[in-house]
Amino acid sequence: MPATRSEPVPTHRPEGYLDALLAKARAASRALPAADRPAALTAIAEGLLLDAPTILEANAADVAAEQARGTGAPLVDRLRLSQGRLTAISRATLQVADLPDPLGAVPTAWTLPNGLRVRRVSVPFGVIGMVYESRPNVTVDAASLALKAGSAAVLRGSSNALASNRALVASMRGALGRVGLPEDAVLLIDSPDRELVTELLRARGRVDLVIPRGGAGLIRHVVDTASVPVIETGVGNCHLYIDAAADLAMAGRLAMNAKVQRPGVCNAIETLLVHESVAEAFLPRVAADLRAAGVRLYGCPKARAIVTGMDAAGDAEWAKEFLDLELAVRVVADLDEALEHIARFGTQHTEAIATRDVAAAERFRREVDAAVVMVNASTRFTDGFEFGFGAEIGISTQKLHARGPLGLEQIVTYKYLVDGDGQVRG
Amino acid sequence: MPATRSEPVPTHRPEGYLDALLAKARAASRALPAADRPAALTAIAEGLLLDAPTILEANAADVAAEQARGTGAPLVDRLRLSQGRLTAISRATLQVADLPDPLGAVPTAWTLPNGLRVRRVSVPFGVIGMVYESRPNVTVDAASLALKAGSAAVLRGSSNALASNRALVASMRGALGRVGLPEDAVLLIDSPDRELVTELLRARGRVDLVIPRGGAGLIRHVVDTASVPVIETGVGNCHLYIDAAADLAMAGRLAMNAKVQRPGVCNAIETLLVHESVAEAFLPRVAADLRAAGVRLYGCPKARAIVTGMDAAGDAEWAKEFLDLELAVRVVADLDEALEHIARFGTQHTEAIATRDVAAAERFRREVDAAVVMVNASTRFTDGFEFGFGAEIGISTQKLHARGPLGLEQIVTYKYLVDGDGQVRG
Repeated sequence: MPATRSEPVPTHRPEGYLDALLAKARAASRALPAADRPAALTAIAEGLLLDAPTILEANAADVAAEQARGTGAPLVDRLRLSQGRLTAISRATLQVADLPDPLGAVPTAWTLPNGLRVRRVSVPFGVIGMVYESRPNVTVDAASLALKAGSAAVLRGSSNALASNRALVASMRGALGRVGLPEDAVLLIDSPDRELVTELLRARGRVDLVIPRGGAGLIRHVVDTASVPVIETGVGNCHLYIDAAADLAMAGRLAMNAKVQRPGVCNAIETLLVHESVAEAFLPRVAADLRAAGVRLYGCPKARAIVTGMDAAGDAEWAKEFLDLELAVRVVADLDEALEHIARFGTQHTEAIATRDVAAAERFRREVDAAVVMVNASTRFTDGFEFGFGAEIGISTQKLHARGPLGLEQIVTYKYLVDGDGQVRG
Repeated sequence: MPATRSEPVPTHRPEGYLDALLAKARAASRALPAADRPAALTAIAEGLLLDAPTILEANAADVAAEQARGTGAPLVDRLRLSQGRLTAISRATLQVADLPDPLGAVPTAWTLPNGLRVRRVSVPFGVIGMVYESRPNVTVDAASLALKAGSAAVLRGSSNALASNRALVASMRGALGRVGLPEDAVLLIDSPDRELVTELLRARGRVDLVIPRGGAGLIRHVVDTASVPVIETGVGNCHLYIDAAADLAMAGRLAMNAKVQRPGVCNAIETLLVHESVAEAFLPRVAADLRAAGVRLYGCPKARAIVTGMDAAGDAEWAKEFLDLELAVRVVADLDEALEHIARFGTQHTEAIATRDVAAAERFRREVDAAVVMVNASTRFTDGFEFGFGAEIGISTQKLHARGPLGLEQIVTYKYLVDGDGQVRG
């Protein structure tokens, strides 16, 4: 996990703390599939407002401690809750309550020649662990999505949000109790001790799925450590390739939007690839627009020959997820070189081409190995809400189980039910 | 991996051997989605017959070496190929060629309010690693299923089958070359060095999926070691629960079939759970039948009070996958105790109940957490061919990605294609 500036001294937790937590989560999870989960989420949404004074007081303590560490204003702001933000979190929870039940899908059913009837039905994972950073709204978001999907949530947020997370989880547990559901369906790993994250990631059979949400450092730690099933999310080194046959005005709008509209997120672009036949027509204008929006540019030698004042770009820049107003620019000889660049440096998140050439678009769609491949659209649309899923747990960058935006359907599993009247195998 | 009696001295492979192999597989994989994969499989099927003399000679060397190690006849037989077996392998390959293309599924498509068109299309994983034990037929089976699914196969079989696997892979590569496909779409990790398995399991981004097929030791090694995506297969501690309301004659047939028809496979039962109200009526007869078929019985105290001469069973027996003519028997007080036993000792493979009680059946279906839950049917039906998938790569015992019998549809992934005309996010 990425280091934070000044870590509080780990609270010691007795041996077996996590095991006990996971056993409680498992027991609680059994009640969820048949429970009125929308009613539970409604109670949670209401409880957050009722408990606002306690939650905001706890959050104020986290914020004060963070400020005392000398953390800059933008990061402190990510941590801060307010009545307005709490109301938004409460409303988002009500929206999750109203989504279609991912366990309610009509089963796929068929009958075998021997008369056995086979049904494939959606079932919850059971216990879902969420490991995430900084923003306390994720605590409620992660818990309500897990509950809606019929699973118990075991939450591990940032240590700098621990007081806020305690208050939020206490509120949610109270709401569960009020509607007659086991409070242990939402549990917090209530310690900044990082060993507990490692324990969670090795708790095979006791946690059914772990979803990390955070930066590249967190994701790498999880993938290196985990023996439990994991869905990697959110590392996006995304590219926009401006083809020889691009509508350059449109291409400029796509580049601006994909870089500038919200630079700190995984579906923003980090590198612009430009076909050399349009580089001189395209780059000066877009570079001026990007710079006017505060973007710092890094370029290959050809790009720097066209646009003066760019910093030099090399493998370090091509590989970097800036997550900021910074962009690398590379002039490529042709589509092949663009495809090679993307295959080498992309993170299989979202890749886009701007072109009017049907054949180039089709080749790009076919050959780019990524969760989402876009033609003439901003990479910023890779998003569960934009895709119409009504929720977003994260953007998966793995190929196993779920790829791209994760909605509720992606955090359930299935089982086969086979009904017979005594069939035996010959 | 489980130890074999007498391991040949590891062939030294130069540093970078596996990296080079995986790079070749990646390059070859690019040609597969658009290739005539059925024609390639047909050529492979024919090539195995044309190359029979070479393959059988290589296999004879493996068999002789195994016999010289003093290995027992059943294990030697698993290793042995013959003209008949090679013909069966060739026919199975033709059957795979004829299966529906898992990449040919009609995409799910929808249009967003902003006019973006989203399609979800099936795509290959890319490079699939298969790690398996003993039987050389798996070499052809694994390669042909991967190829049919559009992926290159990197194969790692048992060291005692290395000569056979070399000959089989050489034959398959020759066939690929004859139809104009890259031979590197099928590659053998051509060394008994176990470090290469570990390297494969840590080759993130260079192998897209690893499927282990083998015993519990192999699976555990893979899960503990892997940082690449894995589908665990084949560890089955399966139970049959005889309910108070069972048709006892049918229950006896199910128990016999599930234990005796093929005891060495993962979907055979290892423990019989019997409701105490029917134990005296049920157990003596079924115990006599099982013993007549050569089954050794282990029992709890109540079972041993009903059937004399059983060995004592405890946690070790409840947890054991015998994979042989051995069965543990436990008398339980009620359905709750049966469910608790299964939750504690089951491996989430296949669990079955024999009952005429609709409510008991429904509760068993709902509460048992397993890939396949059966009512009044033999657990032996958990099988890709029996389920009508036309193929079986293995039986997944994990919840992520694919659960239960793996057909071709379970070894492809998907991507989203988004088409726009300049949409940007507001």
